[in-house]
Amino acid sequence: MRIELISVGTELLLGHIVNTNAAYLSERLAEAGIDVFRVTTVGDNPDRLTAAIRESLDRADAVMLTGGLGPTIDDITSATVARFAGRSTVLKNHVGTAPGLIFDYKGKVIICLPGPPRELEPMFEKNILPYLYKRCTPHAVRCTIKSRSIKLTGLPESVVNNKVKDLLAMKPPTTVGIYAKLGEVDLKIMAKARSERAAAAEMAKIEREIRRRFGDYIFGCDDETLEGVVGKALLAKKRTIAVAESCTGGLVSDRITNVSGSSDYFIGGIIAYSNDIKVNILGVAELTLKRFGAVSAQAALQMADGVRRLTSTDIGLGITGIAGPTGGTKSKPVGLVFVALTTDRKRVVRDFRFRGDREEIKFQSSQAALDMVRKSDFLT
Amino acid sequence: MRIELISVGTELLLGHIVNTNAAYLSERLAEAGIDVFRVTTVGDNPDRLTAAIRESLDRADAVMLTGGLGPTIDDITSATVARFAGRSTVLKNHVGTAPGLIFDYKGKVIICLPGPPRELEPMFEKNILPYLYKRCTPHAVRCTIKSRSIKLTGLPESVVNNKVKDLLAMKPPTTVGIYAKLGEVDLKIMAKARSERAAAAEMAKIEREIRRRFGDYIFGCDDETLEGVVGKALLAKKRTIAVAESCTGGLVSDRITNVSGSSDYFIGGIIAYSNDIKVNILGVAELTLKRFGAVSAQAALQMADGVRRLTSTDIGLGITGIAGPTGGTKSKPVGLVFVALTTDRKRVVRDFRFRGDREEIKFQSSQAALDMVRKSDFLT
Repeated sequence: MRIELISVGTELLLGHIVNTNAAYLSERLAEAGIDVFRVTTVGDNPDRLTAAIRESLDRADAVMLTGGLGPTIDDITSATVARFAGRSTVLKNHVGTAPGLIFDYKGKVIICLPGPPRELEPMFEKNILPYLYKRCTPHAVRCTIKSRSIKLTGLPESVVNNKVKDLLAMKPPTTVGIYAKLGEVDLKIMAKARSERAAAAEMAKIEREIRRRFGDYIFGCDDETLEGVVGKALLAKKRTIAVAESCTGGLVSDRITNVSGSSDYFIGGIIAYSNDIKVNILGVAELTLKRFGAVSAQAALQMADGVRRLTSTDIGLGITGIAGPTGGTKSKPVGLVFVALTTDRKRVVRDFRFRGDREEIKFQSSQAALDMVRKSDFLT
Repeated sequence: MRIELISVGTELLLGHIVNTNAAYLSERLAEAGIDVFRVTTVGDNPDRLTAAIRESLDRADAVMLTGGLGPTIDDITSATVARFAGRSTVLKNHVGTAPGLIFDYKGKVIICLPGPPRELEPMFEKNILPYLYKRCTPHAVRCTIKSRSIKLTGLPESVVNNKVKDLLAMKPPTTVGIYAKLGEVDLKIMAKARSERAAAAEMAKIEREIRRRFGDYIFGCDDETLEGVVGKALLAKKRTIAVAESCTGGLVSDRITNVSGSSDYFIGGIIAYSNDIKVNILGVAELTLKRFGAVSAQAALQMADGVRRLTSTDIGLGITGIAGPTGGTKSKPVGLVFVALTTDRKRVVRDFRFRGDREEIKFQSSQAALDMVRKSDFLT
């Protein structure tokens, strides 16, 4: 079954409200295996609304309208549809006043739902979805879509892209898409099949293949965040962590503490922006700063050691670098960042060259630091 | 001029993302007096996209497409449009990789913009809006639009709204819009006139009126950020600052250090997530924690004093509160936050009750802390 959505409301065309109903209905319909091919927004104008409905009916089996059902003069949907589609079935609105309407029209169906999400959603779930299923299944077999985002960090988009060219070229019913963000690349699998089980199996097959190709570069799925995954691992292994930040200026600690419950493993942090703090609070040797500079592997390691000692944690993280746009030199350019992770058994340090503006370099540094914690064998 | 918007992306039709671009563009176009009569969303399918563009061109003078401009195989917009519309003007993308495109097609115009809002918005403001103006009025007398966002913090939207009801009701050529963000309310003035000078004078008149009504609640204009404004003041007054953060977890320091050159006034910070750090590093009295708790005015003041002493700065900032979602009690609910600012001459502390999720409470706390620095008479 092909369906189109029409959102009715001048307030949408003026940008006064964001069309969240379209996203909600699209997602639920996709999950139910009903294809949404187009979403149209029109204002409270009967002629333009009529035109939009007729066009959608030419292309689709069903049209679902949202909004414009209320009692005010602006609310034109029901009168407009009734004018050419005739009698309707009325759906009771248990939350608000405007009822929903279902019109049978020349073998197709027009559904009108109230605009407010708290009225629309229960009516959709309770009345419309079962109705559509029933209507879909006499001719076509019902089908389901499953989707999952596999999230990677530590590889540039171009490298990921090259490794999954074959998967990205797949055609429905199963597809893979690539979405690059700063410091992260997501691979999104979508599998459509005739049953929940078949869709899940198809998705699992592709996910296994992606996992085989990228292994430890994958840090999570769907809603998971890197800081959330790191937090879970620290909690599971009963490890505590503290962070000494220079160029990231507090961002690593900020991200760690965005996770609810992080006080169970995050003890605290030192933002050592000046050398004085590096020396006097973190105990970085003045000779180190003199010989190697504040942006050096040696300084990063001593910062990690220092904050770990100061806070008595299992893991210390030290980050120092040049976020720019000024302060770079030929030997130490903007984007050069050292991240050190130390425990009482091990000391590791890595250097990175990031590109971007100040905030982008800060973010990529924080991503690299969190990822070093995730990959550290202290947690595995 | 009539324009239609077409949003391109299967992820929109699947409901994976909400179409905020459509709301943004609709609002800005409406402010500019350009009518948006329809918004259409289609997937990454060349045939269906072509059909949608042709239909829109039948109805409107211009079509603006968003999304599908990137380098991956899913990104079909530019190829699809180029296939029937031919050559285009290329707009440089200063933020991302995908350029914007403008096609002249049979006396109408097709505009393609990147999907990510942080790429779309500057390109729209800088290139598209002036272009559309020019195109709208080739015969009429040239007119200029001046716009300015006046940024406020410390007042809820409802209060700001009530104080400018008369301004919000103004009709073109001069209008005022209100835009609420987390911890910030912007008032946007748009003045249209036949000369640059007349538009500027009209805008200045309204700006003076807004400044008269809100005074010190206004922290800046247009691209200015609160952390940038605070940084400028610290630099001008040659003051240094250090921050002791509990509930904000590093966010205040992170924001301060997003400003290039902040190392001239930001010395460092202590993220005192555990009580141990509050006591052992910042020197908060154990008795204070026992009698008043870690979330108290007294603790905030001692944290500010402690970090100031430790780093030898002019200003110390201390933030402690309950970011939630857990950890609240009847007397100390989630959202209760104390911010203290101390110097060698003065100690002030304020309490706030913020609403929202964990990250929203963190952000509002950071906003309040930065705003206390901005307003502190130590800087004036």
